[in-house]
Amino acid sequence: MEKKIEMMRHSCAHLVAAAVKELYGDVKFGVGPVIDNGFYYDIDFGEKSINDEDLKKIEKKAKELQKQSVTFERQEMSIDEAIKFFKSEGQDYKVELLKDLKEKGTTKINSEKELVDAVGNDVKNVSLYKTLNFTDLCRGPHVEKAKEVGYFQLTRLAGVYWRGDEKNPQLTRIYGVCFETKEKLKEYFEFLKEAEKRDHRKLGKELDLFCFSDLVGPGLPLYTPKGTVIIEELKKHIESVCKKYDYEKVSTPSLAKLELFEISGHAKKFGDELFHVTSKKQHDLVLKPVQCPHHTQIYASKIRSYKDLPIRYMESDKQYRAEKTGEISGLSRVYAITIEDGHSFCRVDQVKDEIKNLVNMIKDFYSAIGLWGNHWISLSLRDYVHPEKYIGTKEDWDECERILEEVCEEMDLGAKRCEGEAALYGPKIDFIFKTVTGQEIQIPTVQIDFATPKRFGLVYTDKNGEEVNPVMVHRAVLGSYERFLVMLIEHFAGNFPVWLSPVQVKFVPVSEKHIEFTAKLVEEFKDKNIRVEVDNADETVGKKIKKAIAQKPPYIIVVGDNEIAGDDWTVRVRGEEKQLKISKDKFLEKIKKEIEERK
Amino acid sequence: MEKKIEMMRHSCAHLVAAAVKELYGDVKFGVGPVIDNGFYYDIDFGEKSINDEDLKKIEKKAKELQKQSVTFERQEMSIDEAIKFFKSEGQDYKVELLKDLKEKGTTKINSEKELVDAVGNDVKNVSLYKTLNFTDLCRGPHVEKAKEVGYFQLTRLAGVYWRGDEKNPQLTRIYGVCFETKEKLKEYFEFLKEAEKRDHRKLGKELDLFCFSDLVGPGLPLYTPKGTVIIEELKKHIESVCKKYDYEKVSTPSLAKLELFEISGHAKKFGDELFHVTSKKQHDLVLKPVQCPHHTQIYASKIRSYKDLPIRYMESDKQYRAEKTGEISGLSRVYAITIEDGHSFCRVDQVKDEIKNLVNMIKDFYSAIGLWGNHWISLSLRDYVHPEKYIGTKEDWDECERILEEVCEEMDLGAKRCEGEAALYGPKIDFIFKTVTGQEIQIPTVQIDFATPKRFGLVYTDKNGEEVNPVMVHRAVLGSYERFLVMLIEHFAGNFPVWLSPVQVKFVPVSEKHIEFTAKLVEEFKDKNIRVEVDNADETVGKKIKKAIAQKPPYIIVVGDNEIAGDDWTVRVRGEEKQLKISKDKFLEKIKKEIEERK
Repeated sequence: MEKKIEMMRHSCAHLVAAAVKELYGDVKFGVGPVIDNGFYYDIDFGEKSINDEDLKKIEKKAKELQKQSVTFERQEMSIDEAIKFFKSEGQDYKVELLKDLKEKGTTKINSEKELVDAVGNDVKNVSLYKTLNFTDLCRGPHVEKAKEVGYFQLTRLAGVYWRGDEKNPQLTRIYGVCFETKEKLKEYFEFLKEAEKRDHRKLGKELDLFCFSDLVGPGLPLYTPKGTVIIEELKKHIESVCKKYDYEKVSTPSLAKLELFEISGHAKKFGDELFHVTSKKQHDLVLKPVQCPHHTQIYASKIRSYKDLPIRYMESDKQYRAEKTGEISGLSRVYAITIEDGHSFCRVDQVKDEIKNLVNMIKDFYSAIGLWGNHWISLSLRDYVHPEKYIGTKEDWDECERILEEVCEEMDLGAKRCEGEAALYGPKIDFIFKTVTGQEIQIPTVQIDFATPKRFGLVYTDKNGEEVNPVMVHRAVLGSYERFLVMLIEHFAGNFPVWLSPVQVKFVPVSEKHIEFTAKLVEEFKDKNIRVEVDNADETVGKKIKKAIAQKPPYIIVVGDNEIAGDDWTVRVRGEEKQLKISKDKFLEKIKKEIEERK
Repeated sequence: MEKKIEMMRHSCAHLVAAAVKELYGDVKFGVGPVIDNGFYYDIDFGEKSINDEDLKKIEKKAKELQKQSVTFERQEMSIDEAIKFFKSEGQDYKVELLKDLKEKGTTKINSEKELVDAVGNDVKNVSLYKTLNFTDLCRGPHVEKAKEVGYFQLTRLAGVYWRGDEKNPQLTRIYGVCFETKEKLKEYFEFLKEAEKRDHRKLGKELDLFCFSDLVGPGLPLYTPKGTVIIEELKKHIESVCKKYDYEKVSTPSLAKLELFEISGHAKKFGDELFHVTSKKQHDLVLKPVQCPHHTQIYASKIRSYKDLPIRYMESDKQYRAEKTGEISGLSRVYAITIEDGHSFCRVDQVKDEIKNLVNMIKDFYSAIGLWGNHWISLSLRDYVHPEKYIGTKEDWDECERILEEVCEEMDLGAKRCEGEAALYGPKIDFIFKTVTGQEIQIPTVQIDFATPKRFGLVYTDKNGEEVNPVMVHRAVLGSYERFLVMLIEHFAGNFPVWLSPVQVKFVPVSEKHIEFTAKLVEEFKDKNIRVEVDNADETVGKKIKKAIAQKPPYIIVVGDNEIAGDDWTVRVRGEEKQLKISKDKFLEKIKKEIEERK
């Protein structure tokens, strides 16, 4: 709550609460924290139900109060006095929070995330802020006068349970956004509009890339043929990149005994996020939350010599996480993510080269997709205050961090040191990309791990015949296919490059009599491994073209008498006004080249 | 028990029991049924423990009795008389069976598989067979004299529980094989030796194709890089075959709500074989035992017109079955099978062509692998006595069976009618291949299904704008990758064709000074997508060649001074005495061609 904009947003929440108090009098207030771009306030309106009309009224009132520049007045009192005060005001939720504070020393409103800083620093005394007739239990700080609140707008209503528990009363949540300037507020809504257009859930449906089924369940996307094409193309691309660096594909089961992850430390790390698998035949297994432990077991299946290293495994397989039902959304948060995962088992003297190769591999891959440059790099180190969160010895961590620091320096990566961002078993270099809509997505990562090979007793025989633990280098280039797809869809707004487009050429026969000739073209293109689709619907050519454009194929070709006669083709190029006049052969040459060069 | 050889084998079991009785006197007999190639007898030896020495003694004794040509004398008596008789003989197990027969009308020794035909047809009277002092409760028939028993050998001992229940006493099971002629007995042992050499578990380990880990658990194979190569090559091959027939790849999650399989009928069918997936966050899901219901949900995600059909989906994904822990074995029986599955949604008027295409597809695929011809075809129809085992209406079943019968006739498939072998939802055509070791493996299948689309309410709009249910045609070509791999490994005894070989060329540098040049060759071959391996171990060239041969690569090339000088290469061709003299370029040409043509 230090930054000015956050102070403004929090004051804005109070201002809105004060407006509600002015308008509706007898309501009970829950909590009103700052969130991305604004704030919300949870309010119990009693019997009254609030609709969008009311929301407008509340906004209007709040703006009036802002004009009058009402104030935010701080006062301090003991917890007991505060309880007495809020009791007299009929503010039961505030009383509950204060009692919690008194008894448990915290007002965390639920166990994990929603810590509400509603109190003063001193647990004996609390601070209150008063705006007109509205007084809130609040640590502050606030702006002095409502004029300083900036530019705001109330955006929507939602029904929520007090403290997120469905056994509690339902409150109305009022969401608002708030910015320092009018321009920023406007920009925000423009961004929203753009983001909505690019929303992967919306485009995923429109372009028929994936679907959900009530019978299968939420969080479990089904990829249609078109979505599967994109995934397969990505898979081929990443595999061809990795093959150059001598990665070998392996394939491991989704299940394992819990013991495997107890040894790796993941059982403890993932805890409640583990899916347990049982049967009436007394099986007791878990779905893998990560691939690494399985890969160690392939390494362990043979005797290894120092000459065999590095041994590099890669696998694109599903990993399972029991995410909270309420947090499931589109492809962004699902129960199974398909990870393009890789592990290199190497000697200490090979680690540095291995990491440099991986950084180059990531650079190659993202440059090809046109995302390189729009990123920053994090040197993710351990949390020095809480070393108990990690596995492995201090000496190994020191050594691993030293190696990564040297790589960052030698490769001039300009990495930012981020303490507390390390993996369970070691430090890492993370690459964070900024999408067109301004979101930051962390995908590729390179991690050094001295701990896991020791835990699993992995060894190789060195030159002197001694058994030595290898070092494990973890890496993700594409990361999870689901998250990558979200990024791709939103980045390209569905206008995928030719090589990734599920349909590369859409044929539109002008009428019934052109269908047969078009069918032959379709076969010819298919034989050349070009993905085509044809629209034989009994509709006007205009309507068919319109439908085709909505599907965003790179090229649309209308097939009529001229085409049958062998004239040059007129090709509609996606995103271009002017149509392309080109012979069939030249067009085939052009598109084949674009596919090969991944354009 | 009708066939002569079975009568001989069953008589042989009695003969062995009589020998045991002669040798050990006071023992209790369990049951002694006929099995593949022979028989077993379960005997309670009391305190005495029987070892391989004893087994030889028993065999010797049985052969003596055979020389004496002891007889098998039938007598009949009432159940009560029989109970009295076996009580007086101290044969508790026989008494127990007779009591069961009296009370329950059956002597099934456990619920599922081991029905022992130990009784006469008439449940009031039972038949007994006497050989010397050994009398057995037995339906018969038997040979008259032991001379007619043929040629036999006792093979091994095993400890088993009476009626397969570990709460019961442990018995000693004596296994024996028995054939009509000496030659057949000899052939059998030769076959065993060959089968052992080809055993996929043994070769899988020797050729480093897959491994198991105690930490991951049994029934959960991990494919090493070499095993993964074979799987990936098969995947590419089947996908290229299916692409010709316009199958589109889809990708569906491993999990679903139980409801999905309740609707499809699989929940009931698989019952205890379902894996349940839960978490501490109250998730309640199952791992898919089949793909079909998921594919219906992709079909259901859009409006479909009669012009869109057939819509054909294919997917190679894991399906999960909670097999009994004790039945898990190598790749033959695992918890997750990777099925190359496909479904075509079509109109009734398209079904026949669809099926014919599929039969041709199967023929193409298996011809290429060299297995076509070594098979028989089953027209698998419903069990007319127990229609309650299936879903769907009688009319639909009649129609589906009629269509399949017509296809079999029109394509002259020579299919054998097998009642009771249909799928849950419809009849099918199954292809059963005989492996080199004589085992029958059923892999490809084509199935018609009117029921599932109705259950899921799948429709398309026909010419008249009416909603009509499509027909679902299920098909497997390659079937499960695991089972296919078992067949491939055993069929080829690890000598995979070039296109499937994990290592296509093995380079053996003669000494340290040839390593660098060999490394360049390795890169050159890799660039041409030829899979190579090099052995740089500090060992004699002879030892390295021996190691290489054991790995069964199609080609081994020793690289020495001559190769560096640019002379013709001397290539060791797998399975051939004579080495190949060939220039490097010609060799590259040859191997590229073999890979392309899948040889």
